[in-house]
Amino acid sequence: MAHKPSIPKGTRDFSPAEIAKRNHILNTIKGQFQRFGFQPIETPSFENSETLLGKYGEEGDRLIFKILNSGDFISKVDDVTYSSKNSSSLAPKITDKALRYDLTVPFARYVVMHQNEIDFPFKRYQIQPVWRADRPQKGRFREFYQCDADVVGANSLLQEVEFIQLYDAVFTDLGLTGTTIKMNNRKVLSGIAEVIGAQHLLVDFTVALDKLDKIGEGKVKEEMLSKGISTAAIQKANPLFQMRGNAASQLEQLRELLEDSVIGLQGIQEMEEIISAVNTLGLRSAKLELDVTLARGLNYYTGAIFEVSAPEGVAMGSIGGGGRYDDLTGIFGLNDVSGVGISFGLDRIYLVLEELDLFPKSIGQSLQVLCLNFGTEEGLAALKLVSQMRTKGIKADMYPAATKVQKQFKYADKRNVPYVILLGAKELEENCYILKDMASGEQTTFKINDIPAFLLG
Amino acid sequence: MAHKPSIPKGTRDFSPAEIAKRNHILNTIKGQFQRFGFQPIETPSFENSETLLGKYGEEGDRLIFKILNSGDFISKVDDVTYSSKNSSSLAPKITDKALRYDLTVPFARYVVMHQNEIDFPFKRYQIQPVWRADRPQKGRFREFYQCDADVVGANSLLQEVEFIQLYDAVFTDLGLTGTTIKMNNRKVLSGIAEVIGAQHLLVDFTVALDKLDKIGEGKVKEEMLSKGISTAAIQKANPLFQMRGNAASQLEQLRELLEDSVIGLQGIQEMEEIISAVNTLGLRSAKLELDVTLARGLNYYTGAIFEVSAPEGVAMGSIGGGGRYDDLTGIFGLNDVSGVGISFGLDRIYLVLEELDLFPKSIGQSLQVLCLNFGTEEGLAALKLVSQMRTKGIKADMYPAATKVQKQFKYADKRNVPYVILLGAKELEENCYILKDMASGEQTTFKINDIPAFLLG
Repeated sequence: MAHKPSIPKGTRDFSPAEIAKRNHILNTIKGQFQRFGFQPIETPSFENSETLLGKYGEEGDRLIFKILNSGDFISKVDDVTYSSKNSSSLAPKITDKALRYDLTVPFARYVVMHQNEIDFPFKRYQIQPVWRADRPQKGRFREFYQCDADVVGANSLLQEVEFIQLYDAVFTDLGLTGTTIKMNNRKVLSGIAEVIGAQHLLVDFTVALDKLDKIGEGKVKEEMLSKGISTAAIQKANPLFQMRGNAASQLEQLRELLEDSVIGLQGIQEMEEIISAVNTLGLRSAKLELDVTLARGLNYYTGAIFEVSAPEGVAMGSIGGGGRYDDLTGIFGLNDVSGVGISFGLDRIYLVLEELDLFPKSIGQSLQVLCLNFGTEEGLAALKLVSQMRTKGIKADMYPAATKVQKQFKYADKRNVPYVILLGAKELEENCYILKDMASGEQTTFKINDIPAFLLG
Repeated sequence: MAHKPSIPKGTRDFSPAEIAKRNHILNTIKGQFQRFGFQPIETPSFENSETLLGKYGEEGDRLIFKILNSGDFISKVDDVTYSSKNSSSLAPKITDKALRYDLTVPFARYVVMHQNEIDFPFKRYQIQPVWRADRPQKGRFREFYQCDADVVGANSLLQEVEFIQLYDAVFTDLGLTGTTIKMNNRKVLSGIAEVIGAQHLLVDFTVALDKLDKIGEGKVKEEMLSKGISTAAIQKANPLFQMRGNAASQLEQLRELLEDSVIGLQGIQEMEEIISAVNTLGLRSAKLELDVTLARGLNYYTGAIFEVSAPEGVAMGSIGGGGRYDDLTGIFGLNDVSGVGISFGLDRIYLVLEELDLFPKSIGQSLQVLCLNFGTEEGLAALKLVSQMRTKGIKADMYPAATKVQKQFKYADKRNVPYVILLGAKELEENCYILKDMASGEQTTFKINDIPAFLLG
């Protein structure tokens, strides 16, 4: 018996209507990536396990999908391991490939492997699915696309400026005005950890701070305490939670707090330069904001960090994020290559555009003309007309069966077709066809070889 | 120590240059799919194992990549199975998902799962990667794209006619003239098996016949013999190997051979109808040819079958194939849905276009303008100019560091940029910039806010 088919949890089928909307976003992002001089690369869906494992922390390793070795995989497991019947010891013996967990590590691997072919500075973009064995929930999937743009081999802060402009360009093009690009700098965070005497706990400090939006000031401080950061140190970091005012005034307060930290002051200066350049160049619809509590979880960031939030009133986590990392390719043996990059959250952007009703109405029109089918002879004549239209670039189709006219019209309605062509026995005899405007109901007769100019768009 | 990184065998990284070429092919295919009224769907990269296993024969099952269950996968294996230490018994206990092997079975699963949302007849296209644990060799990879278009829920032979036109349209658009679309019909093959008395060995008969191109007449006959098809039967099938002449004359010879087979004659009539319609409509650059030895390996075909071969002189297997199947969704419980579809072989088409030098020269130009970088102040002015150009849709970039001019020009050369902009201290002072045509060497001075119209293309 046939099962009732299903798909694995956390995965999705995409219908034509959903793909049209997703492509609207993806093509906008891609278009701007290209205008900004980024070039596409693609990497394999699975990598050697050693490329991925150990790069995302312990939890990351757990969430990586591993691919079972082909053939008699179990024969390669030694008896000691086998008799342990322990999943963690067995897994590495029976899998040597794993599905991509993000695009950043494969990109670092790509840069190192192809360093002799690449013309540095290398501006690449990459839009591909990634997979994580996460617990699925609203807006979180086991298969989802990442859309990344990075520059490697360029130290200038104008890169950061360009990425802020890139966010602005994409969201403006999508009609999503009023986004906020929040910026901070890891050097400032390092500086703070330094002046409060918690330098050795920098990772714990940033991980806790990163949760401020979600769990609030009180719980962040509790977590810091539980990680061994002293009450006195937390007290000292207090200005962080109190910062108010515009960027200039916040930077002023920060400068006071960090006056004894070389790295902290360097971070402040970087932010000032970036903000000043962005102000000179201007943004079309986004707002750049300083957020000294912005931390971002990933440890490889070393300079500016970014996160984009949806327009006010839309409850949604960040719809993009990124930053500068100084030694990403070091894990694969290529040192001293600085990089900076950002990412767009396709699924969340989709939800925001849906909520604000920002998808263009024309998106659902995948077909311009549908020719009805009135039988074998008429059908062949119709297909000839349709062929001519297609050759001219018109998206045209003939209904594939000579069923009831009503059924064919219903199909035209569902496909949201603006024009329907009627070519029956009478028209065939008179060498003409009728074009019906589905919105107005108006019918116009054309000669069989006449294709109205307004269809050519 | 960092390993020298590598990627799994049979997989590929794609560089910007390769992606530009692949996209040229994919966009051409997609563009025609859309003109022909097909709508895109996407399915998850992995399916539940039960969806895939048993659908591709024993060899197929072996070649499917299985995904190890997450967490403590081994604890769910019963002791009896575990103590057998047998890979085939263990695999289904520790994997419940598997990577897509083709797009056809997931499509059938999609149609059945979404039958209540779909407006039949459903014309869908799908362009996604698939994975096979095959032995990698020239032109055969473990990860590769399939490009499929299918119609389900339509019986008319005009569908077959449209697919022939679709092949013609795509290959003509790609500049690949002189392709041959070979056609046969499974009903004709069934008829032959019937009249030679090998009806029960139809699958063995078609599988052997399918190899004619590769191993020649003698070996095909040997294989048939070894599968239990009698010498007398093979003798009777001899006309198959001797068919000569145009379609009409071949159909005549076939009609004689199959005069006692109802199904065989039906197949002949179908082919006649298709050929006649194609002749009426005409093809732009492809040639339709009858090939009674064309068998195609896949067992689900029941009517017309197609295979496209590259222009004469290019040694390459088929660059596309497809056919009609009458009950593909039956495996998932939805009966009596007829379908027909074709597929394009991206990797092989790529090799053919490369060999015939048919990729447009403009493909490598991902950047229209590169602005040189002469320092902080000049750089900011340059970035402002570049921003204005980008807003107008021009692909423009600034070299990210104020390094030696020679190095920057070298980069412009490598990126194949047609125009370079010079905006140094002198220009900054005079509120202008110099645009250099890299092909002619000509330099023109423009006012800082002037963007030449020829860049707007």
